[in-house]
Amino acid sequence: MAMKARALYDFRAENPGEVSLRESEVLSLCSDQDIEGWLEGVNSRGERGLFPASYVEILRGEALSPPPPPPPVDTRYANLPPGGYEPAQPPPPTYRAQETFQGFSRPAALPYQHSQPSDDDWDDEWDDSSSTAADEPGGVTTPGYYGGGFHDYESSRYRMSTRSDMPPGSYNTTSSSASSAAKGTATVSRNLNRFSAFVKSGGEAFVLGEAAGFVRDGDKLCVVHGPHGPEWQENPYPFHCTIDEPTKQTKFKGMKSYISYRLLPSHTNQQVYRRYKHFDWLYARLLEKFPVISVPRIPEKQATGRFEEDFISKRRKGLVWWMDHMCSHPILSRCDAFQHFLTCTDEKAWKQGKRKCEKDEMVGANFFLTLTTMPGSPVLEPQEVDGKLDAFKAFAKRMDEGVLLLNQTAGEFARKQASGFKKEYQKVGLAFKGLGQAFEIDQQPFSAGLNKAMSFTADAYDAIGEMFAEQPRQDLDPIMDLLAVYQGHLANFPDIIHVQRGALTKVRESKKHVEEGKMELQKASDIQERCNIISYATLAEIQHFHKIRVRDFKSQMQHFLQQQITFFQKVTLKLEEALQKYDTA
Amino acid sequence: MAMKARALYDFRAENPGEVSLRESEVLSLCSDQDIEGWLEGVNSRGERGLFPASYVEILRGEALSPPPPPPPVDTRYANLPPGGYEPAQPPPPTYRAQETFQGFSRPAALPYQHSQPSDDDWDDEWDDSSSTAADEPGGVTTPGYYGGGFHDYESSRYRMSTRSDMPPGSYNTTSSSASSAAKGTATVSRNLNRFSAFVKSGGEAFVLGEAAGFVRDGDKLCVVHGPHGPEWQENPYPFHCTIDEPTKQTKFKGMKSYISYRLLPSHTNQQVYRRYKHFDWLYARLLEKFPVISVPRIPEKQATGRFEEDFISKRRKGLVWWMDHMCSHPILSRCDAFQHFLTCTDEKAWKQGKRKCEKDEMVGANFFLTLTTMPGSPVLEPQEVDGKLDAFKAFAKRMDEGVLLLNQTAGEFARKQASGFKKEYQKVGLAFKGLGQAFEIDQQPFSAGLNKAMSFTADAYDAIGEMFAEQPRQDLDPIMDLLAVYQGHLANFPDIIHVQRGALTKVRESKKHVEEGKMELQKASDIQERCNIISYATLAEIQHFHKIRVRDFKSQMQHFLQQQITFFQKVTLKLEEALQKYDTA
Repeated sequence: MAMKARALYDFRAENPGEVSLRESEVLSLCSDQDIEGWLEGVNSRGERGLFPASYVEILRGEALSPPPPPPPVDTRYANLPPGGYEPAQPPPPTYRAQETFQGFSRPAALPYQHSQPSDDDWDDEWDDSSSTAADEPGGVTTPGYYGGGFHDYESSRYRMSTRSDMPPGSYNTTSSSASSAAKGTATVSRNLNRFSAFVKSGGEAFVLGEAAGFVRDGDKLCVVHGPHGPEWQENPYPFHCTIDEPTKQTKFKGMKSYISYRLLPSHTNQQVYRRYKHFDWLYARLLEKFPVISVPRIPEKQATGRFEEDFISKRRKGLVWWMDHMCSHPILSRCDAFQHFLTCTDEKAWKQGKRKCEKDEMVGANFFLTLTTMPGSPVLEPQEVDGKLDAFKAFAKRMDEGVLLLNQTAGEFARKQASGFKKEYQKVGLAFKGLGQAFEIDQQPFSAGLNKAMSFTADAYDAIGEMFAEQPRQDLDPIMDLLAVYQGHLANFPDIIHVQRGALTKVRESKKHVEEGKMELQKASDIQERCNIISYATLAEIQHFHKIRVRDFKSQMQHFLQQQITFFQKVTLKLEEALQKYDTA
Repeated sequence: MAMKARALYDFRAENPGEVSLRESEVLSLCSDQDIEGWLEGVNSRGERGLFPASYVEILRGEALSPPPPPPPVDTRYANLPPGGYEPAQPPPPTYRAQETFQGFSRPAALPYQHSQPSDDDWDDEWDDSSSTAADEPGGVTTPGYYGGGFHDYESSRYRMSTRSDMPPGSYNTTSSSASSAAKGTATVSRNLNRFSAFVKSGGEAFVLGEAAGFVRDGDKLCVVHGPHGPEWQENPYPFHCTIDEPTKQTKFKGMKSYISYRLLPSHTNQQVYRRYKHFDWLYARLLEKFPVISVPRIPEKQATGRFEEDFISKRRKGLVWWMDHMCSHPILSRCDAFQHFLTCTDEKAWKQGKRKCEKDEMVGANFFLTLTTMPGSPVLEPQEVDGKLDAFKAFAKRMDEGVLLLNQTAGEFARKQASGFKKEYQKVGLAFKGLGQAFEIDQQPFSAGLNKAMSFTADAYDAIGEMFAEQPRQDLDPIMDLLAVYQGHLANFPDIIHVQRGALTKVRESKKHVEEGKMELQKASDIQERCNIISYATLAEIQHFHKIRVRDFKSQMQHFLQQQITFFQKVTLKLEEALQKYDTA
């Protein structure tokens, strides 16, 4: 029986082998098994070709339940104009290059750009509260195949940004409303389909030996085999960079205002001034250049209130975190674009360097060319790499859940301290005040000391209430800032893992092709060797993630506890002051 | 125009000059001005005589609003069988003696007995939330005349006992529901009418020179004129008395169980065992014996759960407070009944002493006979005494309000700590635990220390939650116990002040009678002299109240703050322990 499908969106064919779709038209499918996110079929005009599996729903003669709501729009780190997308009308994918492999249209690495909707990628594997569509028999997702997880990262990131979009000190969104908002909002997913990360990153092109470029010695990066497996070779010249309180600048005789940050990198000790748009430009370069590296996300854009103190302070904190992670990363910290960003002080040189970075050829697939392993490094067993990826996937899922819960809890706790806790202590203060004022009616000498002491106690409890309300800025806010950074990283990893999985798949395919006599042994061996580079890089990146995670969480937990201790000591001190007043009462 | 009134309750005339009333019958009034709580009128059967003003409502031809709801029944300190009263059918007053003065029936001192309903005494002077009936023009209350205040004490005491009736650690009654319950419940008020306190106490009989008895030298009590005015002469042999943890005893071969308290008075250093019923007996003796002294109230009776640990512990705490106030009082501490109670160890002697105390003639009016002032003590100006009473009344009103607010606030704060605060800290613990458990999936050596530390931190926050929930027993509960003691005292004072006012009124009346030639100068002079004794006693009691108030609140505030400090130090310690775990992480 010929399978049918109905187009959910318009799709315009832009490459040979694709067919255009009109929303609602019914298609005949050649197979209901998508191949790397694409389906083959015949449209209502009799044209045969490929179209994104995510653009159709497969009809099985039974009453179809409506598709699960797409995950929410996450504009936090995406450089979107507000309202720039219409969820029901996703733009078709744009390709920079188009090549064919085994008869399938395959877009090559994409420049830094925005996500596409992909309803069929909705997957509850990483989030129990998401739709169960993926579990339907014959559904378009392939069970056990790692892919759609990033959707849930996306939706949890949304929940994060719900919190971070709120002005500091107001914690009015409860976790349940945030999570229901996350489920009920239309969204644009980041990838068109499952194989896009592998393709976009250039991983596929590299593995297939299609990447080519001249690698200067200075560009060469080494992955070493350390005691815990592959690791990035440490930056031999580590540095850090401070970001000072931003100042408001104007240009065009005050017509235009912007916020300028003073950066002071330790390795040059020469200050530079940068604006948010410079960070944004750099971020785009990094995304474009580095596959399988988790580029820390820059703080989200904000259309309004850009000059409000809270927003500026919050953004600076986000940029500080970002800078810290950039400087900590052995690869990112050394890249030309970042160094240009950190060191260039001349406007003309800035523009030249900017153009040069934008023309960098060693991006995506070519980036892999710059990677080498140490001589004598063992070739990693694909099965072992697969196992490590599975373990990390399980870890990341649990960490994502843990981060989400802690974030919600911390936000709620901060809100409670600013409202309930404050109120309770101040009410106690008020009650002491009331009784103290009654006592003051008795003006006998032996009564005066008590009256004074009670009034002081009342003020102390009022102050303690205020202290509770203010405290979250010192301890919970930094924890939540850290969690936001790590939710960003966790949201990056599905793509990284996907690239790795794609490479391993290619190795398996090539082996099969060799067995079937369709491929020369040398070619398959080259593929495996190049896949090994990706495996080294991926595992090194995972190892780096664990290292900075342990470092960051250790230091933040210490900071948090230290702040909590300081807080309770301050409360104690306040009470001791009050108590002393009774000594002379 | 003849005034009319309608009987609100049945009233049975028991003394010459009174007329009986039937509920709802309409009476003609001779005047709508009550004289010391009694009205004169003609009932529907044409009988002319006196009846309590509180038993009728005056009809003025206009539509009458229903009478304000009576204050709630407060059985806390009254030895009533449950349900022993029908609010709509109050028992008529019972008199021990009956005398006449100026044509009015006047009952003499009453034995320790129960209260009568008295709707017209409902007075909002001490409580803004009570009925406004007292403000109605021509109402049966006399504005400016101090009297009905104890009603509001009663109702606030009810609110207190609502709290104290709850098992410790459960703080479920909100202040608003408690206060609305207080307003909406029928009650039996303690005094028949306004002059009853003056009469019942024996104050009137004493002032009028009708008290007679032989005062032994050993029974003589001195009121001195100290730097702050009249004061009780200190007990030259001060002592205190501990009450140990009670034990359950049985008699009749286990058929009957009771709780026995071990008392150890410091002046004899010989232990005695007493049951609640002994305290109750003593309390009745004290109430009977001492006018114008605020006898501390014993903890309320409780029909069920008498052997539950919480109740026993709470009752003991109440008895400890009671004992402390008894021992602190220069007069109460020395009285025979109390000394018998504290020192008698032999059962036969106990019964003899008990009977002797019950036959004590120096009670009520005669008690005043035992009071002397120091030779050369100034005669107090009635106007000055009046001013001091006004000041104390204003003070007591404010203190009552302050105590009520602090009690509600403390109860609510305790409840919040046991629920919300605990929950919030434990939720933070749970969130740390969740993230820590996710981290434990990464079993690399450099991760293990952090994992352990986070697990410890999680447990620390869980423990802190528990500490918040447990803390109120250490600090807020003792504050609330203290407040209950003082609400008892504040509820006693309106009667004390009333006795004093009655005496001053008698002085003014006697002066007028002398002017009108109706009384001999000597008799008026004697009245004034006796009134002076009451003034000394009342002001001494007020002074004593202030002294112990300052002492008690000072020491309780110190205790409270010390406990709070200890608590926050414990929290800090817990956090410091957690922080240390990261040193080796």
